[in-house]
Amino acid sequence: MAYRAPVSEFRFVFDHVVGIDRVSATETFAEATPETVEAILLEAGKLCETVLAPLNREGDKVPARLENGVVRTSPGYAEGYRAIVEGGWVGMAADPEFGGMGLPMALTTAVNEMMGAACLALQLNPLMTQGQIEALEHHASDAIKALYIPKLISGEWCGTMNLTEPQAGSDVGALRSRAEPKGDGTYAVTGQKIFITWGDNDFTENVCHLVLARLPDAAPGTKGISLFMVPKVIPREDGSLGARNSLQVVSLEHKLGLHGSPTAVMQFDGATGWLIGQENKGMAAMFTMMNNARLGVGMQGVAVAEAAFQHALAYASERKQGRTPLGAGAIIDHADVRRMLAQMKAEVFSARAIALACAVAIDMGRATGSTDWQARAALLTPIAKAYGTDIGNEVAQMGIQVHGGMGFIEETGAAQFARDVRVTSIYEGTNGIQAMDLVGRKLMDGGEAAYRLLQEVEDHAETARSRQPDLANDLWNAAEALREGTEWLVAQGADDRNAGAVPYLRAFARVLGAHYHLKAALADEARLPLARVAIKRLLPEHTGLLAQMREGSAGLYALTPEALAS
Amino acid sequence: MAYRAPVSEFRFVFDHVVGIDRVSATETFAEATPETVEAILLEAGKLCETVLAPLNREGDKVPARLENGVVRTSPGYAEGYRAIVEGGWVGMAADPEFGGMGLPMALTTAVNEMMGAACLALQLNPLMTQGQIEALEHHASDAIKALYIPKLISGEWCGTMNLTEPQAGSDVGALRSRAEPKGDGTYAVTGQKIFITWGDNDFTENVCHLVLARLPDAAPGTKGISLFMVPKVIPREDGSLGARNSLQVVSLEHKLGLHGSPTAVMQFDGATGWLIGQENKGMAAMFTMMNNARLGVGMQGVAVAEAAFQHALAYASERKQGRTPLGAGAIIDHADVRRMLAQMKAEVFSARAIALACAVAIDMGRATGSTDWQARAALLTPIAKAYGTDIGNEVAQMGIQVHGGMGFIEETGAAQFARDVRVTSIYEGTNGIQAMDLVGRKLMDGGEAAYRLLQEVEDHAETARSRQPDLANDLWNAAEALREGTEWLVAQGADDRNAGAVPYLRAFARVLGAHYHLKAALADEARLPLARVAIKRLLPEHTGLLAQMREGSAGLYALTPEALAS
Repeated sequence: MAYRAPVSEFRFVFDHVVGIDRVSATETFAEATPETVEAILLEAGKLCETVLAPLNREGDKVPARLENGVVRTSPGYAEGYRAIVEGGWVGMAADPEFGGMGLPMALTTAVNEMMGAACLALQLNPLMTQGQIEALEHHASDAIKALYIPKLISGEWCGTMNLTEPQAGSDVGALRSRAEPKGDGTYAVTGQKIFITWGDNDFTENVCHLVLARLPDAAPGTKGISLFMVPKVIPREDGSLGARNSLQVVSLEHKLGLHGSPTAVMQFDGATGWLIGQENKGMAAMFTMMNNARLGVGMQGVAVAEAAFQHALAYASERKQGRTPLGAGAIIDHADVRRMLAQMKAEVFSARAIALACAVAIDMGRATGSTDWQARAALLTPIAKAYGTDIGNEVAQMGIQVHGGMGFIEETGAAQFARDVRVTSIYEGTNGIQAMDLVGRKLMDGGEAAYRLLQEVEDHAETARSRQPDLANDLWNAAEALREGTEWLVAQGADDRNAGAVPYLRAFARVLGAHYHLKAALADEARLPLARVAIKRLLPEHTGLLAQMREGSAGLYALTPEALAS
Repeated sequence: MAYRAPVSEFRFVFDHVVGIDRVSATETFAEATPETVEAILLEAGKLCETVLAPLNREGDKVPARLENGVVRTSPGYAEGYRAIVEGGWVGMAADPEFGGMGLPMALTTAVNEMMGAACLALQLNPLMTQGQIEALEHHASDAIKALYIPKLISGEWCGTMNLTEPQAGSDVGALRSRAEPKGDGTYAVTGQKIFITWGDNDFTENVCHLVLARLPDAAPGTKGISLFMVPKVIPREDGSLGARNSLQVVSLEHKLGLHGSPTAVMQFDGATGWLIGQENKGMAAMFTMMNNARLGVGMQGVAVAEAAFQHALAYASERKQGRTPLGAGAIIDHADVRRMLAQMKAEVFSARAIALACAVAIDMGRATGSTDWQARAALLTPIAKAYGTDIGNEVAQMGIQVHGGMGFIEETGAAQFARDVRVTSIYEGTNGIQAMDLVGRKLMDGGEAAYRLLQEVEDHAETARSRQPDLANDLWNAAEALREGTEWLVAQGADDRNAGAVPYLRAFARVLGAHYHLKAALADEARLPLARVAIKRLLPEHTGLLAQMREGSAGLYALTPEALAS
């Protein structure tokens, strides 16, 4: 069962659902013409189908391993990495000044989805480097930019992010790694970091670690954190490699999935580092990068969901079992199998459309400086991340279910999707934290950005009423219920908002998904059956979700730890 | 993190929720006095905590393997098995005439839950044997009974079920294995069977395979299937072991979970077998056994959910991260973590209560011969199986989420619960098939058994109105909506029923769960907060579920295979 890159689907969503024409109409992204978009998608799609997808099972079976302090990567990963690099995909969003393609985030996000669907464990490597390039572009000195970014774009070097420590996970502010000024403009960085994705490899000549650490006498918490570039090998000014830095991989984790991606415990022992951005402003710098990384992770969820859906659809189309209402056909003709496949496809469409709408908002915010677009991007980011990865998990689990007993056998491949995608709901901020970001920071404008988006949904539903009265009506009512739910939420204190955050985020995704499905169906009648699945079958969940949200926190805290343990 | 057997919880559910007093009031189960129930639970609980639970990680890390045709089991499993046997737990439901304890299914189900929570991979072995004992008690000749059952109860031998073939999974009627009469009353059984749980081991002296096969000139489909006992070693009449039979383990599967449980491909080459029950009535014999096995599998889901909940609760009670609304406490005090733990506990209670109510109905049906009780048992069985295993998966996944990044690391143990429990939604009839059984066979009485149960729920809600008006009102309304949904369903054709089967089953479980939670809260006020979680947060899902159910099949079939693939 081979992965097929959904190139025409991206073009449809770009053109008819999220309006990429607005992006290419800006001066910043004027080069992203329809022809360029088409060419990029086709070329990246080919790479994913022919080079990356065949590596996926291999990396699962032969995990990356640590041998005498050296990380050995899975069979074929070095070649896969080189193919990604040679296609220019690491630097596709990067500034052309340093050798990047300067493509809009919408297109980058689509390409990242295809790479993630083909081989998520390997895709994580360029995804981390993309984030690092972005952080450097925004916060590094000109000298650092000139030295590092071209090497990162060329793929000679790659990048990591070092945030987590054993006692500092979601609470980054609890980190203890220290950085002492050495008097020559550099710093000695010391500490242990865990969960470092692609902490090392055997196919790039350098690994550039962005490390969060504390300067001496820094304030406690997040206000005393600074960001440092700590390369594995210290580069000379001309970019050639000098001495080995004082850092090492202590161990690799034994994980549920993503076996091809080495997740390292990193030890820094007075390693030489360079300050990125201002002292004690490390969190701000990290957040620039993390915001887009969250979209990237959301798209990883969509990626695996797409791959798992294709895989299950192929099986259901071939496997014969019992008489179906349509005769002795394949199991796809059993109503309940059809139901699962329909839901899988509907979720993938919804999550992809939300993620690409978020990417378009990021591009428009950047190209136009419009605060409205920036607020739209900020609002959609936690939804894209949490909903995309939630359905990544759900669709992969349904993929196993469609396979029946074969789904439990590893050789089938269905289980790997579920194992690999599992962490996407956790890293880059757990989905609970995404939801709290949505109901906290993202509604701090009194809900203005949310109401503006819901107004668009309702206006669209009004317009659609003449052609699809039933669907338009359901959508309008759900959007209105969500608006009322938002009004309720905005009026609550933090505890009640947080208690309702996860169901609220999901209800929001249900409404947005229905909105994009209806847009698609109006543009192409062949998409009406799928839109009906999303609107008539899935959208009604919003009622239960909003009811749960309105319960607030009192009932949860009434269930004491003692009551939970009894 | 050690497993703690929920002995007092079982006693509470028995006494205040499912009414085990009715069972012990029958002549058949008169010995199941409160004192006996208490003693049984305590003794089994101790075995699970001290002997079985420590084997769980070990079996995952060192899977059963095939060496030169011999299955080598995981470290400690032989000792664990012996402890189960010595406690008499294999034969706890079996007829005392053959050495069994003759305990009611309610108690057996509770003990099986604890064994499954402690070590699911090993628990599968006695679970299969229990099913075989039951099949033999109902369908075997006196000679076979006398020869096999005592050995199965003593654990010297164990039992398997051989149904599936590569082309015959959910469609058992497609099987091709043959049985030819040898003229001496025995049969030569030939064919390949797959997915045979505990197909062999290195700690019992015999393995007794119940095999479905076709006699010469048998009708096609399920009407031409007969059941045979095909032992690994052919016993002499006195029970001593004779010649090796012509069967072998071809290979063991490489599975997502349950690594300690050897899942075999079995090859029968003219192996000697004995007919069990009548010719061509193999499916009926198999169904007797499978019905109770489905309850057993449903309880496996509850078992893993309980274990995963305890594991996550312990972590959340210790792990400190960030400021919580209650201060710098553990993450259990974050509203969203509390929400997850609350939902996990509420689901476990609901699923366990449904399963034990089903077990009580089985016991009452058997002890009194009442067709009402038998219909109640038949109605609850697919709900107990599908809902129990669905929440087994969901709770295990939430357990990973509560652990954050640590949940993705195998050493933590949270991921193993999710991997192990995954197949329970698939084997013993996929959950889709359970739902179709519910809306098909189990509503063929025109919904009578369902309406009778819903009447009890509504009557109970009426009674509860004076003490808990809000909760009682929600429950009554939901039960009424489910009744109307049932009326709608009964009036539809098979395709529409099947299309709505899964959401209907879940809605039914939501209403029953709320019903049992309310009963618990009325019996013990300390349980009110958890009942509120179930009724105010989870029960409202029934609206979306019933809306989905009413969509029927037309919309699904409108989404053609071509549209799904496009």
